[in-house]
Amino acid sequence: MTIRAVVFDAYGTLYDIQSVAATTEQAFPGYGDIITQIWRIKQLEYTWLRTMMHRYEDFSVITRDSLAYTLRCLGLHADPAAFSRIMDKYLHLDLYPDALAALSQMQDRRLAILSNGSTGMLHALVNNSGLDKVLDATISIDRARMFKPSPQAYGLVEQTLGVRPADVLFVSSNPFDACGAKAFGFRVAWIERVTPEDMALACRTSDVVPPLTLFKAIRMQMDELGLEPDHRIAALSELPHVPLRLG
Amino acid sequence: MTIRAVVFDAYGTLYDIQSVAATTEQAFPGYGDIITQIWRIKQLEYTWLRTMMHRYEDFSVITRDSLAYTLRCLGLHADPAAFSRIMDKYLHLDLYPDALAALSQMQDRRLAILSNGSTGMLHALVNNSGLDKVLDATISIDRARMFKPSPQAYGLVEQTLGVRPADVLFVSSNPFDACGAKAFGFRVAWIERVTPEDMALACRTSDVVPPLTLFKAIRMQMDELGLEPDHRIAALSELPHVPLRLG
Repeated sequence: MTIRAVVFDAYGTLYDIQSVAATTEQAFPGYGDIITQIWRIKQLEYTWLRTMMHRYEDFSVITRDSLAYTLRCLGLHADPAAFSRIMDKYLHLDLYPDALAALSQMQDRRLAILSNGSTGMLHALVNNSGLDKVLDATISIDRARMFKPSPQAYGLVEQTLGVRPADVLFVSSNPFDACGAKAFGFRVAWIERVTPEDMALACRTSDVVPPLTLFKAIRMQMDELGLEPDHRIAALSELPHVPLRLG
Repeated sequence: MTIRAVVFDAYGTLYDIQSVAATTEQAFPGYGDIITQIWRIKQLEYTWLRTMMHRYEDFSVITRDSLAYTLRCLGLHADPAAFSRIMDKYLHLDLYPDALAALSQMQDRRLAILSNGSTGMLHALVNNSGLDKVLDATISIDRARMFKPSPQAYGLVEQTLGVRPADVLFVSSNPFDACGAKAFGFRVAWIERVTPEDMALACRTSDVVPPLTLFKAIRMQMDELGLEPDHRIAALSELPHVPLRLG
């Protein structure tokens, strides 16, 4: 079995969603980080709930609505200009520093993004960050109108690239996404950016567990869904060394 | 249009899931509350993710797996006896103090539970708390093998009670559940146990927003899903005063 395509999740995997914190901190001093954490949790929740309720709206609507929820819960009021500045930052997220080099070393394989993001959001992001030069395809789940981890979302890879699931290596830092991709039939590399040791240490170093640590705990550790990624890597830079042939 | 049946969510609506905190605190001093918060968030996530991945396991499995995740993330180790004691508490949750009186005042309508809980868990809970004497039916979603907010889960009410969705008043304190029930076609009463004013105040009274407040913020405020409950009530005791005839 040979890996013919490497397909990446976008948000949190190639692009650092925490890079929006500088903008939220500027708008709401002292709340920058916590806004990004709650926002992200609700953003994902809304993708799952809307898929289950058969009430699809695209990721730009969900991103806006989950930000509105977050600010309301924290008792914060954004004027329309500040709200727009935060939303706009989502189209200009920072690439992880090792992303471009890792992708450039794998040009012998088909390279693509499969993301919850809408086509419009993804094209802006990919063009703004220069990834358009190394990717063969940028696939939005909006063609399926179902978010990850729906099998229909992952099915868009074969429809677009013509590569069978067993010949795809799917890369994500999001545990739910790594599990969903594995359940679908992809080979999966999970990027473990926060180790269990880091997490346990952070939770022990304070009488009151720091809230940001707890929010990371919710999203960053491998889930208990009865599924295991094929590879655990610490960073995108390790990816070119993952074996091309898999037994 | 007349309300012919009143159907209740169980966990967090009739039964106080925070009542497990005494048991988790005994097992892990200082961590009692935070365990229950993370546990609940992951428990719900796993119901949504497993439904979307078509990998149904019943709620007892999900409850066990999400507790295991929570303890691992916090760097805590439970011996099997302590783990079992915590799990067992889930079958003996406290009723909200006004639950039995509210249900007893509505015996002129069909009364039922529709819950994510497995049949086994729900029967234990209903018998242990004495609600079996006032309920006409206790419906587990496990017959549909899809969790709320899937329409198939809510569809079990009509299949069991023979009452059309438009003639059902569905009661939940869980915002995602109130939205799912509304999307399905029920009349919906949402129990708002934490007001926006409480929440905003809690977030302003400390330089560092208390983590427990933040966890409540994630789960307890009405979601931004484009759906509105028909009634907002502060407690179950208000329910007998919700109008029987709806225009």
